[in-house]
Amino acid sequence: MHPNDPSLRSFVDVAPDSDFPIQNLPYGVIVTSDDRRPRVAVAIGDHVLDLGIMEDAGLLPKVSAKPVFRTPSINALMENGAYGIGTVRRKISELLRHDNPVLRDNGVLHKRALVPVRNVKLRRPVDVAGYTDFYSSREHATNVGTMFRGKDNALGENWLHIPIGYNGRASTVVVSGTPVIRPQGQVKGPGDPAPVFGPSRRLDIELEMAAVVGRKTELGHIMDVAEAQYSIFGFTLFNDWSARDIQQWEYVPLGPFQGKAFASTMGAWVVTNEALTPFLVEGPKQDPAPLAYLRQDKPHNYDIRLEVELKPASATRGTIISVSNFKHMYWSSAQQLAHHTSSGCAMSVGDLIGSGTISGPDKGSYGSMLELSWGGKEPIELVEGGTRTFLEDGDTVTLRGYAQGAGYRIGFGEASGQIMPAKVKSK
Amino acid sequence: MHPNDPSLRSFVDVAPDSDFPIQNLPYGVIVTSDDRRPRVAVAIGDHVLDLGIMEDAGLLPKVSAKPVFRTPSINALMENGAYGIGTVRRKISELLRHDNPVLRDNGVLHKRALVPVRNVKLRRPVDVAGYTDFYSSREHATNVGTMFRGKDNALGENWLHIPIGYNGRASTVVVSGTPVIRPQGQVKGPGDPAPVFGPSRRLDIELEMAAVVGRKTELGHIMDVAEAQYSIFGFTLFNDWSARDIQQWEYVPLGPFQGKAFASTMGAWVVTNEALTPFLVEGPKQDPAPLAYLRQDKPHNYDIRLEVELKPASATRGTIISVSNFKHMYWSSAQQLAHHTSSGCAMSVGDLIGSGTISGPDKGSYGSMLELSWGGKEPIELVEGGTRTFLEDGDTVTLRGYAQGAGYRIGFGEASGQIMPAKVKSK
Repeated sequence: MHPNDPSLRSFVDVAPDSDFPIQNLPYGVIVTSDDRRPRVAVAIGDHVLDLGIMEDAGLLPKVSAKPVFRTPSINALMENGAYGIGTVRRKISELLRHDNPVLRDNGVLHKRALVPVRNVKLRRPVDVAGYTDFYSSREHATNVGTMFRGKDNALGENWLHIPIGYNGRASTVVVSGTPVIRPQGQVKGPGDPAPVFGPSRRLDIELEMAAVVGRKTELGHIMDVAEAQYSIFGFTLFNDWSARDIQQWEYVPLGPFQGKAFASTMGAWVVTNEALTPFLVEGPKQDPAPLAYLRQDKPHNYDIRLEVELKPASATRGTIISVSNFKHMYWSSAQQLAHHTSSGCAMSVGDLIGSGTISGPDKGSYGSMLELSWGGKEPIELVEGGTRTFLEDGDTVTLRGYAQGAGYRIGFGEASGQIMPAKVKSK
Repeated sequence: MHPNDPSLRSFVDVAPDSDFPIQNLPYGVIVTSDDRRPRVAVAIGDHVLDLGIMEDAGLLPKVSAKPVFRTPSINALMENGAYGIGTVRRKISELLRHDNPVLRDNGVLHKRALVPVRNVKLRRPVDVAGYTDFYSSREHATNVGTMFRGKDNALGENWLHIPIGYNGRASTVVVSGTPVIRPQGQVKGPGDPAPVFGPSRRLDIELEMAAVVGRKTELGHIMDVAEAQYSIFGFTLFNDWSARDIQQWEYVPLGPFQGKAFASTMGAWVVTNEALTPFLVEGPKQDPAPLAYLRQDKPHNYDIRLEVELKPASATRGTIISVSNFKHMYWSSAQQLAHHTSSGCAMSVGDLIGSGTISGPDKGSYGSMLELSWGGKEPIELVEGGTRTFLEDGDTVTLRGYAQGAGYRIGFGEASGQIMPAKVKSK
């Protein structure tokens, strides 16, 4: 049976609302207290399957002469190409099936290889080669454009023709759970006589998904959209933290830089493109029709429900401040990647392609606090009282998401980060 | 004696106008026909000293438990910090002195380790972690701003306060000598009804220097300018090829992307910051005074003469189309790097910090063809007849540069690339 088959069950207990049924099998990187060497794992229910141990036991297909699981990222797995990846996922699925005794009935191996997720530490799963962020939700671009440049210049002349994107900073992509230090920077309000340097006062989130590129290309190679779709290994939750005050003062004419360079948080689990195939849907109608190199003759959007929770340090409960969906993207990730290669730009295994903020059509579905509070003018109400326009120190923001199947969910875990105070030097 | 001492001489012949006297000792990475394993070398006159062989012979200080020279980049050397780097340069200088018999009189070693540069192939010397490009020549920013946005908006409100920069694409930084494929992309002229996709018709160069970052920092660490200066391992020539037509249509609001993603050419030799110390000079006066985090109390500009040669495929001689100087930069590389960390952005060993196009005050010193031909309106005359506004297929562009000492030059070799036709698919 195909690993996506809805009828599959595992001998590992999986709650109906778990993100990680046997149909998912997302890849992550773990360490444990008894083995500090990072290695690749898949999530199954409330457990992880340690693929380093499974590889040692000779139970996984050998896709490469070198180890691909006893490594500190999933890059080695990705480098072995779609054939190897598909083979591995099928084998893992088989090993976890309710009716397969190989792992289920091997007491020692079972105990060693299947570890409760609470007993592992999740590392950044991808050795991030490059990080590119796009700007491809029409609603988000219209909202931000209206606030930054006025209603008449909201959506630029090029926006409906190009998946607008820019290079981000790969060195500061961190895994879920990593604290985020409030950035400092130059800011200047419209009425200020001169800029000042200090902690950002408009610290924001961006609800995104990131596509993980699993294929290397050479300089000069241009992908069409079908090849781009095939070159995406999987997806993860992604929060592109943004200091709006720094960004606003710096971004003309060369784009965002320090306003976004301080941190971006990715989820600990990369859900394979294969596991998401059942959830492909048409995106918004593209009018004008894209140029030939951006045309897609199949759906490349995904129906993935997304939510953002904000929890102040003092709160006992978080507030869901946004519920959106990945399907709202005007430009698909495959179109973004095709455009990325259109100049002949070489892609690397481990490149992250941020979707850009995913805002839906109505206010409760906006993917940034800038939009949710409409530039700080309409504070967001919290469930335990109090409000937010932008983030305060101690706040924790958690992104979650899943695609709903028939009786199971393909979920992403979470991408979470707590805001730490700025490191202000006393002079 | 200090390795920079002007009186030093080597037993290796060095012509007076050579880029590579014993006072220089720039690092590169070589392979040879009899040994395809890349390793680190220094240039001396028309030869290179193979540091892999010197390391094997036990003649270099051991700065690390792992090999630092039998590696495919200079990153391992840089990771060993300023102490290790200084020790190594002193030792190499000693070994190459005219009065030191150790290498000079060891016939076998001499022959093996000192290889004519024509017998080696130079590889990209740096494993490029991230690539950031700045926009820090006031003349260049004013010229381009005038052409793209009109005279009144030429220099943005933020330009005199922030070293404006953006993230570039690290995967397409190539070493001197690598052919550059003419990029394709979306372009739309002001009068065109819709964009079209095709080969760029305004392919340009940018005369730059790139600083190579030699120290890793953690998230949240902010460098002051003095620390930034100390964190720069060295400099190399840098050509940030630019497709102006693609750039113009794509760059609002998030900055350059595919217009620059197809290739950037770095020199094969990285000249150490230490070797350049004698050539530190004051930059242009900064008014208004920079904010405290950007203040420098010492000169951080360098007096490095730079030139650009353009040679059509059919020509026997190239034309020097620009003579500029690195000293013209308004913002120093140290200020750029300090600003880069101002948000807490983590830096990596092997990050490249492009200076931005280095234009001098007069027309013969502009660092791009966009400026030299004033947007294509004033064609550049070539010495053998003919003109250029932008680059044609077959053209070779070569950057060169050196600092002039008393009786010697600290030179950079060259950063060269020939334009290949676009790879247009027939459909």
